[in-house]
Amino acid sequence: MADGTAKGFVLWFTGLSGSGKSTLAEKVAGELRSAGRKVEILDGDEVRTHLCKGLGFSKEGRDTNIRRIGYVAHLLARNGVVAITAAISPYRTIRDENRRLCGDFLEVFVDCPLEECMKRDVKGLYKKALAGEIPQFTGVSDPYEPPEKAEVVVRTAEESIEESARKILAAIRAHGYLA
Amino acid sequence: MADGTAKGFVLWFTGLSGSGKSTLAEKVAGELRSAGRKVEILDGDEVRTHLCKGLGFSKEGRDTNIRRIGYVAHLLARNGVVAITAAISPYRTIRDENRRLCGDFLEVFVDCPLEECMKRDVKGLYKKALAGEIPQFTGVSDPYEPPEKAEVVVRTAEESIEESARKILAAIRAHGYLA
Repeated sequence: MADGTAKGFVLWFTGLSGSGKSTLAEKVAGELRSAGRKVEILDGDEVRTHLCKGLGFSKEGRDTNIRRIGYVAHLLARNGVVAITAAISPYRTIRDENRRLCGDFLEVFVDCPLEECMKRDVKGLYKKALAGEIPQFTGVSDPYEPPEKAEVVVRTAEESIEESARKILAAIRAHGYLA
Repeated sequence: MADGTAKGFVLWFTGLSGSGKSTLAEKVAGELRSAGRKVEILDGDEVRTHLCKGLGFSKEGRDTNIRRIGYVAHLLARNGVVAITAAISPYRTIRDENRRLCGDFLEVFVDCPLEECMKRDVKGLYKKALAGEIPQFTGVSDPYEPPEKAEVVVRTAEESIEESARKILAAIRAHGYLA
């Protein structure tokens, strides 16, 4: 079923920590692979390890991190791969910079109220951030700028994972990246 | 002619500044593209700009730079792309680390005497290094460790670009990466 001539694109997830980006990225990746697509997930943490070790969480460090993810996603997408990114990517201007760089770019806003993300607190990060152990934590002590024109908005506090994934796949089809 | 199901691999050029890595990378990339392959060239300078800004030229800075090139090459190669790297990559252990990471990995030693590279001095870097304006310059004030088991060795002081490129393509075929 592999379709090596399919057009690559970047599926850019953005949202608070704990909003469900990685879960949805995995889910959609599975569906795309079943459809014969080549897929790479560029997870915020993995990229930090391999490409951004030593970069801090200051505005500048974050911007550099997100630009690097964008650069690698761009290289993959222009070679026919679906590059899925799942980093918080809190700043609008850097996301838009990556949109311009990549061209084939669908932004998925994983919209989930901060209170719900804090309640989930899967990695225990909010607890640490609220205790002041993590400086500049998005949503707590650093801003999150929601997208103004995301191609898809999923509301993970109200929708099931399946519903959200279906919306994302529908958007991918609507933009001509999947038959 | 595009063959999207072809197996990706990493073609890792290593050699002194001015030895001819980039010229040969471009030449071989052209041939591979003509054969319908997807190709990305990861040039040392370009990667420094996008992935390694701020990293110095110390041993640690260089190692990080080369590891990052290896990581991105790996992502591309496992998605069917021919990832060609053309950085000096002076240290054997880091090249071997990337060889293990990538698996599908052909090392091309661009062997050219230091004197010849200095004579060419395409970018004027040797002049600057000899004047002490560039610290830790490979071949002048920093070591270059030649590969011990490169899949191809080209001698650019004696061979024409065409001859060297033919040897590299023959090695790619010999290892089953090109029909």
